Amino acid sequence: MSFIGNIFNSRSKEDGNFFLQLHKILGFKPNKKSLYRKAFTHRSMNIKDKAGNAINYERLEFVGDAMLSAVIASYLYDQVPHGDEGYLTKMRSKVVSREHLNELGKDLKLINLVQSRIPKSNFGNNIHGNLFESLIGAIYLDKGYKSCKKFIFETVIEPYVDIEQLEGRVISYKSLLIEWCQKEKNTFDYDVYEDDGKDELKHFSVKLSINDKVVAKARATSKKKAEEKASKRAFFAFQRQITRLI
Amino acid sequence: MSFIGNIFNSRSKEDGNFFLQLHKILGFKPNKKSLYRKAFTHRSMNIKDKAGNAINYERLEFVGDAMLSAVIASYLYDQVPHGDEGYLTKMRSKVVSREHLNELGKDLKLINLVQSRIPKSNFGNNIHGNLFESLIGAIYLDKGYKSCKKFIFETVIEPYVDIEQLEGRVISYKSLLIEWCQKEKNTFDYDVYEDDGKDELKHFSVKLSINDKVVAKARATSKKKAEEKASKRAFFAFQRQITRLI
Repeated sequence: MSFIGNIFNSRSKEDGNFFLQLHKILGFKPNKKSLYRKAFTHRSMNIKDKAGNAINYERLEFVGDAMLSAVIASYLYDQVPHGDEGYLTKMRSKVVSREHLNELGKDLKLINLVQSRIPKSNFGNNIHGNLFESLIGAIYLDKGYKSCKKFIFETVIEPYVDIEQLEGRVISYKSLLIEWCQKEKNTFDYDVYEDDGKDELKHFSVKLSINDKVVAKARATSKKKAEEKASKRAFFAFQRQITRLI
Repeated sequence: MSFIGNIFNSRSKEDGNFFLQLHKILGFKPNKKSLYRKAFTHRSMNIKDKAGNAINYERLEFVGDAMLSAVIASYLYDQVPHGDEGYLTKMRSKVVSREHLNELGKDLKLINLVQSRIPKSNFGNNIHGNLFESLIGAIYLDKGYKSCKKFIFETVIEPYVDIEQLEGRVISYKSLLIEWCQKEKNTFDYDVYEDDGKDELKHFSVKLSINDKVVAKARATSKKKAEEKASKRAFFAFQRQITRLI
């Protein structure tokens, strides 16, 4: 099942596909391509540089983990003015929990980019979060802190981090989005269907359309959760558009 | 012993002194002054903002700690290409150890800037490291990541982090410095004296002069350690000068 081939030495078709897919995920063109190749190279590939140092994504995970913690820390400092050091630390550990990072990596389908000699079906769940961290590490080393922060805002904070929800208060992005659509005279439609995939648990997928165009998809263990997830994504996608127009 | 007075509401002489001393430590002029005042406000001052949120340095410590970890992580990624994730994590924890941070805070004499209702003599040793972290948090929030990284390089990495020493290999900065002095035809002098201060342990202080000008001071539990410490500081101070001249 795994995609085997040494992208470090070839300018193959696979290489082109790799950067095409990556470009879509990143929203920008990478400069230092070898960093991203490294970010998706599993240790089983057993690649070494001239000095004999192993080339795989594990060292980049170390950098990505640190950058993620730093960006989330400054975000929480701004957003939770009433929280003391202990409270902020607890909130951050919820945001960067293993479970959450795995979800993020899965949603970005990072595993499709991994190079490994082990079949993908043999990987545990943590590979999704690990690849997400290594990708962040590569972005930092390639483009610097600002771009890295922007990527974390767009992929982690805006679609997933909800201070209100983290603090145990409740807010519905579905109602916010519907309110916005009505104000702007946009039509909207939530197309929900059962989508169990390979999961044992029952899952629902939803396609959210605005003015007959699909603007967000989401998947969760309940219809309501999936709708809320899609609404939040759409809400922030549009919020960015609006901000850009100003 | 403590300096009591509400610098949040006054443009007093103390306030001027505070920013004069701070400027010397930072090497640049702060913009958002209230952040730095906060960075040196102990919780015992019991100051609150309009919303009732406590104003003290503890939340800034959270930000500073995260930034320090991130900067050191990317530094170690570059400097230790052979180290895997576990090894890099171990090295980082040596650099940002409580003991090390306390030493840094002490060297910068940050405690002289603290506002507190508790006498300074009642503080434990950790206040030095805590203030160091809160200062880094303030720098990040005031000036951004690049300036924060630069400050960490100049106050932590260059004078204190020695990859060779961290890895258990040995290098002598004293011999490097002497070699450099001889090459550049500079005179040098290590003026060492016993300096036990209030410590139970025997301590040595050293003043290192180059061309009859004191360029670095250091203090340690042995003559050799103190000389090595002073040499390292001088070495990096001169290295920066040299880099700037190029």
